[in-house]
Amino acid sequence: MAVVTVLGAGRMGTALCTPLLDRGHRVRLVGTHLDGEYIAALRASGIHPGLGHPLPAGASFFEAGALREALEGADSVALGVSSAGVRWAGRTLAGLLRPDTPVLMVTKGIEWNGAAFVTMPDAFLSELDPSLRTAIQPTAISGPCLAGELVRRVETCVVFAGRDPAEDDRWAELLRTDYYHVWTSTDLAGHQASAAMKNAYVLAVGFGAGLHARSAGLPPGKDRGDVATGDALPDHDVAMQSLAMHNHEAAVFAQATLELRRLVDIVGGDPGLVDGLSGVGDLHVTCHGRNHRLGFLLGTGLPMDEALRRLEGVSLEGLEAIRVAGGALPALEASGRLGADELPLLRHLYDVVEGRSPVGVPFDRFFG
Amino acid sequence: MAVVTVLGAGRMGTALCTPLLDRGHRVRLVGTHLDGEYIAALRASGIHPGLGHPLPAGASFFEAGALREALEGADSVALGVSSAGVRWAGRTLAGLLRPDTPVLMVTKGIEWNGAAFVTMPDAFLSELDPSLRTAIQPTAISGPCLAGELVRRVETCVVFAGRDPAEDDRWAELLRTDYYHVWTSTDLAGHQASAAMKNAYVLAVGFGAGLHARSAGLPPGKDRGDVATGDALPDHDVAMQSLAMHNHEAAVFAQATLELRRLVDIVGGDPGLVDGLSGVGDLHVTCHGRNHRLGFLLGTGLPMDEALRRLEGVSLEGLEAIRVAGGALPALEASGRLGADELPLLRHLYDVVEGRSPVGVPFDRFFG
Repeated sequence: MAVVTVLGAGRMGTALCTPLLDRGHRVRLVGTHLDGEYIAALRASGIHPGLGHPLPAGASFFEAGALREALEGADSVALGVSSAGVRWAGRTLAGLLRPDTPVLMVTKGIEWNGAAFVTMPDAFLSELDPSLRTAIQPTAISGPCLAGELVRRVETCVVFAGRDPAEDDRWAELLRTDYYHVWTSTDLAGHQASAAMKNAYVLAVGFGAGLHARSAGLPPGKDRGDVATGDALPDHDVAMQSLAMHNHEAAVFAQATLELRRLVDIVGGDPGLVDGLSGVGDLHVTCHGRNHRLGFLLGTGLPMDEALRRLEGVSLEGLEAIRVAGGALPALEASGRLGADELPLLRHLYDVVEGRSPVGVPFDRFFG
Repeated sequence: MAVVTVLGAGRMGTALCTPLLDRGHRVRLVGTHLDGEYIAALRASGIHPGLGHPLPAGASFFEAGALREALEGADSVALGVSSAGVRWAGRTLAGLLRPDTPVLMVTKGIEWNGAAFVTMPDAFLSELDPSLRTAIQPTAISGPCLAGELVRRVETCVVFAGRDPAEDDRWAELLRTDYYHVWTSTDLAGHQASAAMKNAYVLAVGFGAGLHARSAGLPPGKDRGDVATGDALPDHDVAMQSLAMHNHEAAVFAQATLELRRLVDIVGGDPGLVDGLSGVGDLHVTCHGRNHRLGFLLGTGLPMDEALRRLEGVSLEGLEAIRVAGGALPALEASGRLGADELPLLRHLYDVVEGRSPVGVPFDRFFG
């Protein structure tokens, strides 16, 4: 039995407590300064309002201000924060972590430092004292895992990747259950790049359902009414059913897979991992999430600001990943790491989210 | 302008007429002996009852008995038949085809001759006179294309694969429109294997939604009621929405991708094509089709015969592909082409459809 402190009581940080508790560990879930109401609800009912399903009994819940207390005597720390919170988490934990603390991260995201992509574990480490940066080797989770399903113990397969295989194995041993299946990998950069960028590409997979909703099923490009910003739209799930624009979606999915391989290659990872949990698996499951929904809204013809308004309060890591990777394109080309005709789907996504182009997938530039 | 005779007035054969007609070709659509009512409906209204959307004007429609007449003066022949009809089509056309007739096939399927897998074009050719077998080099279509969307001109990306690049290019030139995007490949065996076997694997992707429907959202393995054969089931599309078992589905999708690579390798194709239209693209789109629905029904706990009864009249090429590939496993192992621990998902699918095992995906044998 281990004592595990989980920092971040969002959906995924909270859901991760389910296998930890089922394995009999002592779990201390600490909210960030944004998670006060979640901690209050979990204390009152054991149910996170964003998950709607109780955690197993036995967790303790802490407000952000009680982090130091929650870390006392803890063996290990799991980070349940989003990419926007990962540097904050580093700064917050900087004075509190021992050099030998095992760290697990659910964060999926990517940064660009002007010359290279930066993984979430490295963004986290860069906020720590130099002495800790080599002593701590975080393990990062990737693979298809919706939090609402993990908390309900739906069978889930994930990859724990890090630079220290012993750390990854230790975390895997702590968390494996009959529904939470864990594989390990030392290809941290590759799994992180794939897991982060699949959030970007799923926006484009969502375009088809939006185009279909906009056209009311009429042929694309014909008799398509513009969507006024106040108009009601068909429900996202309804638009995904039956006859829609699945051919469009699937072609985008295929091109996204090829571009994920290229991006994994650019970070020095093994492109083959895209044919697995952190690539096509994660891309597939994300079609049921909020980033797909943003692509759907953009596909209906809504401008970016209005689409974002309709998703207010929702964390959209795909949008950030598009901006990071899109912003890196000139430097990648200038340094000879990328050709001008490569990654046409990413380029289109970047143009769309920056308001430079309406949705219009450039199929004829694909599959080159 | 070409004169193209399309044999087979099922959904896909009929839908293929849309780009042909939009490109201004003269199209003669000939029903098989099973297609009489479709031909009658098309003559009356221009609408195939299974598609619900009119063809562009200009096609001529022929009963099966008028095939010879429909071939008179035709430049090219397209086969719209399913895998069950491909040998019949070969026998029927055997005396009618000129040696230089270009042949296009929409058929996705696979056969096993006791020693090797056989593609649909080769199954077709083997029914022709020996002199025609080398003179005719069919072009086979693969990639994500739902017929109901093609007839509505949804943007669609496909691969035309064959052994004669000039034939493939000729067909691509005849069919390309602003919504029907065509790439060509000489890897006929690889594209055929991937396109056929994705129909098999999508059954397993569908298991998750069925398990979810069966458990009414309760944790798998707990409080799960058996489904009596007469019971109403939740609608397939509803079960696919929102919280379900998408983590389960996505892990299966990832393993299916890896097994498709292995199967393409076994037929001598390039496994890399699985990261593209005929692999992940086709697998993704098929999640909206009938083979996924069969997996869903099996996931709910229905026995095979009852699941098939509920899908009566629906062509299930995935089921046939599982039986063909599953039946080939012993010979592949005996000849050293396959290890006993390889393709665990295909082995499970084969056990399920043969009634030897309930649905229970062996996740711990995946991602080896």
